[in-house]
Amino acid sequence: MHELKIGLLGCGIVGKGVANILIQNQQLIQSRAGIRLTLKTVADIDTESGRGIPLDEGVFITDAFKVVDDPEIDVVVELIGGKTIARELILKAVDNGKHVVTANKALIAEHGNEMFQKALEKGVEIAYEASVGGCMPIIKTLRESLIGNHIHSMTGILNGTCNYILSKITDTGISFEEALGNAQAIGFAEADPTLDVEGFDTAHKLTILSSIAYGMALNLKDIYTEGITRITPMDIEFARQFGYRIKLLAISKNNGDSVDARVHPAMISDSNLLSNVNGSLNAVAVTGDAAGDIVLYGHGAGMMPTASAVISDLADIARNRLSGIKNRIPPLSFQPDHIKTLPIMPIDEISTHYYCRFSAVDSPGVLSKISGILGQYGISIKSVHQKGRKTKGSVPVVMLTHLAKEADIQRALAEIDGIDVVNEKTVIIRIAEEEELE
Amino acid sequence: MHELKIGLLGCGIVGKGVANILIQNQQLIQSRAGIRLTLKTVADIDTESGRGIPLDEGVFITDAFKVVDDPEIDVVVELIGGKTIARELILKAVDNGKHVVTANKALIAEHGNEMFQKALEKGVEIAYEASVGGCMPIIKTLRESLIGNHIHSMTGILNGTCNYILSKITDTGISFEEALGNAQAIGFAEADPTLDVEGFDTAHKLTILSSIAYGMALNLKDIYTEGITRITPMDIEFARQFGYRIKLLAISKNNGDSVDARVHPAMISDSNLLSNVNGSLNAVAVTGDAAGDIVLYGHGAGMMPTASAVISDLADIARNRLSGIKNRIPPLSFQPDHIKTLPIMPIDEISTHYYCRFSAVDSPGVLSKISGILGQYGISIKSVHQKGRKTKGSVPVVMLTHLAKEADIQRALAEIDGIDVVNEKTVIIRIAEEEELE
Repeated sequence: MHELKIGLLGCGIVGKGVANILIQNQQLIQSRAGIRLTLKTVADIDTESGRGIPLDEGVFITDAFKVVDDPEIDVVVELIGGKTIARELILKAVDNGKHVVTANKALIAEHGNEMFQKALEKGVEIAYEASVGGCMPIIKTLRESLIGNHIHSMTGILNGTCNYILSKITDTGISFEEALGNAQAIGFAEADPTLDVEGFDTAHKLTILSSIAYGMALNLKDIYTEGITRITPMDIEFARQFGYRIKLLAISKNNGDSVDARVHPAMISDSNLLSNVNGSLNAVAVTGDAAGDIVLYGHGAGMMPTASAVISDLADIARNRLSGIKNRIPPLSFQPDHIKTLPIMPIDEISTHYYCRFSAVDSPGVLSKISGILGQYGISIKSVHQKGRKTKGSVPVVMLTHLAKEADIQRALAEIDGIDVVNEKTVIIRIAEEEELE
Repeated sequence: MHELKIGLLGCGIVGKGVANILIQNQQLIQSRAGIRLTLKTVADIDTESGRGIPLDEGVFITDAFKVVDDPEIDVVVELIGGKTIARELILKAVDNGKHVVTANKALIAEHGNEMFQKALEKGVEIAYEASVGGCMPIIKTLRESLIGNHIHSMTGILNGTCNYILSKITDTGISFEEALGNAQAIGFAEADPTLDVEGFDTAHKLTILSSIAYGMALNLKDIYTEGITRITPMDIEFARQFGYRIKLLAISKNNGDSVDARVHPAMISDSNLLSNVNGSLNAVAVTGDAAGDIVLYGHGAGMMPTASAVISDLADIARNRLSGIKNRIPPLSFQPDHIKTLPIMPIDEISTHYYCRFSAVDSPGVLSKISGILGQYGISIKSVHQKGRKTKGSVPVVMLTHLAKEADIQRALAEIDGIDVVNEKTVIIRIAEEEELE
């Protein structure tokens, strides 16, 4: 039984990458894993999609359900995406006793608890390294390399589209809309970019990482999620003047009895390694009690990097099969009976530093009014910059706060935005605490 | 058999860290691995060394050989260091059917081929994640996560002592000797720093990484190794002016029929992520045909980070034991019958860019003489900077070359150093090629 027979569902960008590696690097993989990985069937409704891959006659079919029902297939690789057909196919494959490899972060984040439970019952594995961070082995690192560590926190740049757009605004000063158009033109953003730019994709990934780091059930719905659509060149420029860059961060901290997990644009010091992660690249910093800080950095998406992660899952399953074992590593890192229901803190309860940009009329007494209200809510100001530049009759007044509670900030801003000298809704950007990496 | 009984040999810095994690995080590890890791015996000749660790009565002994002969012990953790007793103990443990975990890079690099062969015969594992990069999971990443990739190249900062010293010289302009004294004072360098500052420790690590990346037998002796003792603040300052920083790099490239593997100080562009790895931190960039570039970054040494890596090896062995399997991953990544004898290129045969600092008398015609000789050997100059600053009657003349062969550079410099207008041996520092990470 020195062969693992693979059925590939979905032959889009990543599917093509997987097929290509399985064909071109088959000898290499076998010389490492000691078992042959064979691509038995490729299914896609688009009959053009297998083009360019040197598939043998009869390998390409259009009916994915035939693959999950094929008794000869050992592992199904789901690369269709979405949460309906993909879920149905995976559950059917599991039911038929097949292992599954998927890159589908949305599906894992939303339905993983149910899917993993079913896989455990059936004695098969659902592997999903490719769902977070592309070729960066963040799931393996958390589940295996950091096994002796209490994970304290994680900070990630997990969406290449957002990072590309923010890098572009930072480098050229163009607007979000222009930068998005730019990203779409070169294939770094989808025609409908909502999933990426609104932070949902990052939230899916953070859900997965938080679960395996802290031993909690997957919980997407409680993660505060804010995207990058309201980031302006002006705020990026102010950030630069304060020594910060703006990134869409996935932030997650284990407080012991709750988890602070959230996705939002954040200012990060330009001396922090993550601030230098540019373009479509991804990175994630993890802090453990023994290891200290580890950072992984690489291509978080794209055809070959994602395919590389899929292959590593296939090889792990192949090695387990060769050894006659299953579920060597529990799907969510902790043994199923050790997974807790750890609540995620509502965003109102977090404390952090804030960048506030007020749009105020240029008259005496404005600063005093704003800072007076902030003071009433117990928010103390670390620095104030009032620039002369007028935008539409207002001047931007920028304040950086000391540590403040989100609830206090929101109450103070509701009041400030109501006074007559403030013309527009105040912009806030949270400031990520310093990683001490050096 | 849900328990793995561990015998720890050597209770120095890292040994204490391992003992502490095994005791303090025992529940955590069990809740992930599904098997209890028990510290049965700790052996050290220094009876004071177990102090401060909450060991039960009778756990601490002075005779390491009793541990490797104890039939109740499943895994021996070797943290004694050195290549004599440590080797003897490991081979005895293997002979007795015990698994071994070690952080001993010198031993693996020099005797690993023999040790792994013996372990395979005996059906036990020798795990060594902690030997390279401390808590960075570089060995797991190469052996498991990048299994589908042809690894093209690796560039690493793998010695915290050297990186600390070079960072110190860069930041403060003090001499190598002062920076070394500084590092020794705060425990970042040994009393005898030879192994670190001469590059030998880095060469041990590069030997290991090259073997598992390219599928070649461990081959330390052919790796060109040059340390940092001759790096001066002047060269660091010139480097800065050209947009470079100086790091001790482990460089390894797979040419297909040979491997270019070498350790030497190198200039690296300040836009490269590795140039921002400062202080005692480590990082390694790996380029694979599918994944593209991946960078791992973290604490490459120290009590807890190294202990964290030892624990991950112990957990892997525990999981295998729970499943009743051994050697799920081949020790050198490739199946033993697929390990090639791939030659390492002599340093003479490499081609790279060079920084040359000539110490010349300040007179007309000097530049023409030097560049004339370079030209005779086919070396073309990319840029020349002649600074006014005199050092002991000479002026430094700095040249950066286009791609040149090491053998040509050496022959040209031998001639140049012989002419009357050149006062001192010319300093060369190789320039690392650009990683295209962004």
